[in-house]
Amino acid sequence: MREITVEHLDDLAMGAAVLGTGGGGDPYIGKLMARNAMTGRPPVTLLDFVDLHDDALIVPSAMIGAPTVMIEKIPSGKEAIAAFHALESYLGRKIDATMPIEIGGMNSMMPFTVAAELGLPMVDGDGMGRAFPELQMVTQTIAGLSAAPMGLSDEKGNSLILNTITNEWAETFARTATVQMGAAALMAIFPMTGAEVKRACIPGTLTLIGEIGRAIREAHAAHRDAVDAVCDVTGGVPVWTGKVGDIERRTIGGFARGTARVEGYGDHAGRTLEVDFQNEFLIARSGDDVLVTTPDLITMLDAETGEPITTEQLRYGFRVVVLGIPSHRLWRTEIGLSLTGPKYFGYDLTFRAIETRYPAARPAS
Amino acid sequence: MREITVEHLDDLAMGAAVLGTGGGGDPYIGKLMARNAMTGRPPVTLLDFVDLHDDALIVPSAMIGAPTVMIEKIPSGKEAIAAFHALESYLGRKIDATMPIEIGGMNSMMPFTVAAELGLPMVDGDGMGRAFPELQMVTQTIAGLSAAPMGLSDEKGNSLILNTITNEWAETFARTATVQMGAAALMAIFPMTGAEVKRACIPGTLTLIGEIGRAIREAHAAHRDAVDAVCDVTGGVPVWTGKVGDIERRTIGGFARGTARVEGYGDHAGRTLEVDFQNEFLIARSGDDVLVTTPDLITMLDAETGEPITTEQLRYGFRVVVLGIPSHRLWRTEIGLSLTGPKYFGYDLTFRAIETRYPAARPAS
Repeated sequence: MREITVEHLDDLAMGAAVLGTGGGGDPYIGKLMARNAMTGRPPVTLLDFVDLHDDALIVPSAMIGAPTVMIEKIPSGKEAIAAFHALESYLGRKIDATMPIEIGGMNSMMPFTVAAELGLPMVDGDGMGRAFPELQMVTQTIAGLSAAPMGLSDEKGNSLILNTITNEWAETFARTATVQMGAAALMAIFPMTGAEVKRACIPGTLTLIGEIGRAIREAHAAHRDAVDAVCDVTGGVPVWTGKVGDIERRTIGGFARGTARVEGYGDHAGRTLEVDFQNEFLIARSGDDVLVTTPDLITMLDAETGEPITTEQLRYGFRVVVLGIPSHRLWRTEIGLSLTGPKYFGYDLTFRAIETRYPAARPAS
Repeated sequence: MREITVEHLDDLAMGAAVLGTGGGGDPYIGKLMARNAMTGRPPVTLLDFVDLHDDALIVPSAMIGAPTVMIEKIPSGKEAIAAFHALESYLGRKIDATMPIEIGGMNSMMPFTVAAELGLPMVDGDGMGRAFPELQMVTQTIAGLSAAPMGLSDEKGNSLILNTITNEWAETFARTATVQMGAAALMAIFPMTGAEVKRACIPGTLTLIGEIGRAIREAHAAHRDAVDAVCDVTGGVPVWTGKVGDIERRTIGGFARGTARVEGYGDHAGRTLEVDFQNEFLIARSGDDVLVTTPDLITMLDAETGEPITTEQLRYGFRVVVLGIPSHRLWRTEIGLSLTGPKYFGYDLTFRAIETRYPAARPAS
């Protein structure tokens, strides 16, 4: 059990952007919100899975919608609180702790706002170990847990409770309502008992993003290579180094889709890497050669600073290192792949674990 | 206090179609559902407003969506029950009675299914005195009451609770979710205390549709003119008699919009009446001469049988009598007209109460 203060937020946000795999929303906004909520309040207590009572009520907090909208209208945090109060009212029970559902990107930060405002502890873990574009894409779905009942609130004061028969239906209703709410809304989702968190979620991922952020910061201070530092902490490997060429972008069904081309350096000189994304990077390939596929993580770091770059920030001429990072073992099961494998996203490709191609990659135990 | 049995349903459905003013959904489907739920169960007890305890919890029941869909997939009634259970769970309190929110069309019948299945009494009244296309168009809105919290359920088992800041937002979220639910869903909406029902709703309208239906039935049996009988009971007047010419139909924003033209007979020979509709008939005019406008009721009866005709049933060659019926006085207030007057529907017309043009029309006291 540890305590998180505003001083930890920079590292956490940096690490969250690495696991955001190009999407997940810029954690910078989430960091501003968290800092605002935490300033002048006691630290947020972090709970390990072993600290949880089996019958405690844990409710993750997350944003849904277009992260770009949140840059225009930064949520006050009241929406997240409203979603929690609506769900508590529906469940007729007080919520004991919150946690992230998506450790990659902005959603790693949202629970801090809730935790600080409501004085709740926060569980060290999440349901993805990365970022994914749809809300059923969580290890809770693999474990057979329901996203419902879930609360959904906007900044105007509207709140909804969704009690859906599948997590795909939760995604459908939440996504549609979010469009009406002005393209971004806050959720209190996947209410779980402590026992369910232990059974269904990925432990230690808040600690992990803090360590990733710290590794980058310390590498900068010591003039060491931050890319190496990120690989050390995440078990990832560089799969490509090069210069960003053209980027195709199209917005389809509320998602930022597209392809970024990276012209190779060194070993890859004269070849081009194509990285497809749907909010997050999904597939990295060069010609017919498939280097990394979802659910393994593909992330782009600035070659100079080792800092992560989102698909929105990508511009022609950026020099980048493309990392592949092994996904959590739950994603590599049959049901995990049916939720987030290449075929779900429309690719006629079979998932091949990154460490079978790059032995230096180390999956978490 | 009276009791309603399946024997009363035919009259009620017939009267509901008259007040449906061409829309509101065919009460025939609602009647089948009600008959199914009521068969083999005790009669449904009807409560007058004076029978209500001031602190009783009353929740109207209604369908939202495209009535045409319900003809293809008749709801089992389980959806309506699910919406009630979801709302009870959210409110943490048992619901004491149900009632219609819209006495015109199918929604007059939906509460019978809920009342029979849950063994609840039903309040004799509603929030429109007719049918209207959007859910904020109720006398509860005039009285400043909220549609929320409301339950919304589909036949698959999904249910939502909407807690919205205005009734227009309730309409927006409910309409959007309904599209996802397959174009029709059931609502438990406008939870009210008994005191609020007395203050906000229109009393006696279930009795009224029963009387309209009985008047038509008895006129048939006695070979009297059923159109006269409908006018006697409703205070309405015939404003046009003629033959249906062409009908323009277009579906815009989920609503059935269009214009029906009626070539005049008798006094109106050589002239054409144009009746615009958006689910319900809104405006009846001949050239520049505006005969009747919303919120006053425009309804079409078969000239021979006196039975009501919906916009969907309208065909070239039908001989019809067009009735104008005074709306409830609450609709003629400034706020009432802002919700349902001609300008709301995009017409640059000023409402003029029908009895000022047709002195034979009798508004209810």
